[in-house]
Amino acid sequence: MTHPSRRLDDEVHQRVRLGILVILHESGRADFTYLRDALELTAGNLSRNLTRLEGAGLISSEKVADGTRPRTWLSITPAGRAALSEEIAALRELIAGVGPRTAPATAPPSARPGLHSATG
Amino acid sequence: MTHPSRRLDDEVHQRVRLGILVILHESGRADFTYLRDALELTAGNLSRNLTRLEGAGLISSEKVADGTRPRTWLSITPAGRAALSEEIAALRELIAGVGPRTAPATAPPSARPGLHSATG
Repeated sequence: MTHPSRRLDDEVHQRVRLGILVILHESGRADFTYLRDALELTAGNLSRNLTRLEGAGLISSEKVADGTRPRTWLSITPAGRAALSEEIAALRELIAGVGPRTAPATAPPSARPGLHSATG
Repeated sequence: MTHPSRRLDDEVHQRVRLGILVILHESGRADFTYLRDALELTAGNLSRNLTRLEGAGLISSEKVADGTRPRTWLSITPAGRAALSEEIAALRELIAGVGPRTAPATAPPSARPGLHSATG
């Protein structure tokens, strides 16, 4: 069976891009300044990741005149929503087995070759 | 409030390294060949990421004679378990708000400036 980490796509999984997609998914759309502040990014870093997401068809952008300077609005596309859903399904599967366990494992390990418990 | 994506650490969050840490957390330890096959990686890619995780103190390795050739066992360190717990806590928080929603949002947006619903 394929390990769920195989289903993570770097295009979506990368930390900054995942943050952008989650915000746009939740809000529908947001402007550049809002994203920059919410994600505590430099304008350059945000801009690079927006360009990459837009190039992959996962978001779209729109420049709107707002007084003296244009304001850039970003939206998630249907392809972006689908990619984010895939990412989140894979993440849920990946972390489901980890649980809130903080003490070392004490349960006996499964008998698969190449795997041993920490106490083995 | 800090966005949960800010708490994702690339050292742990990167797709391959996250897969390695999850397997080692669940199993206690695993050998190189098992990880390579379970994560469907080339030996070179796995090796690079193991070196990086070991350099960060998140895993440890041990070479054990096994017949004619040495076998490399990888274990997660206490620091690795702590880092993985942090990552998973941040991921849970990040994806909690996304939910299994598949239809476009129809609820009215919050009135925060810089945010609008997709239908706005």
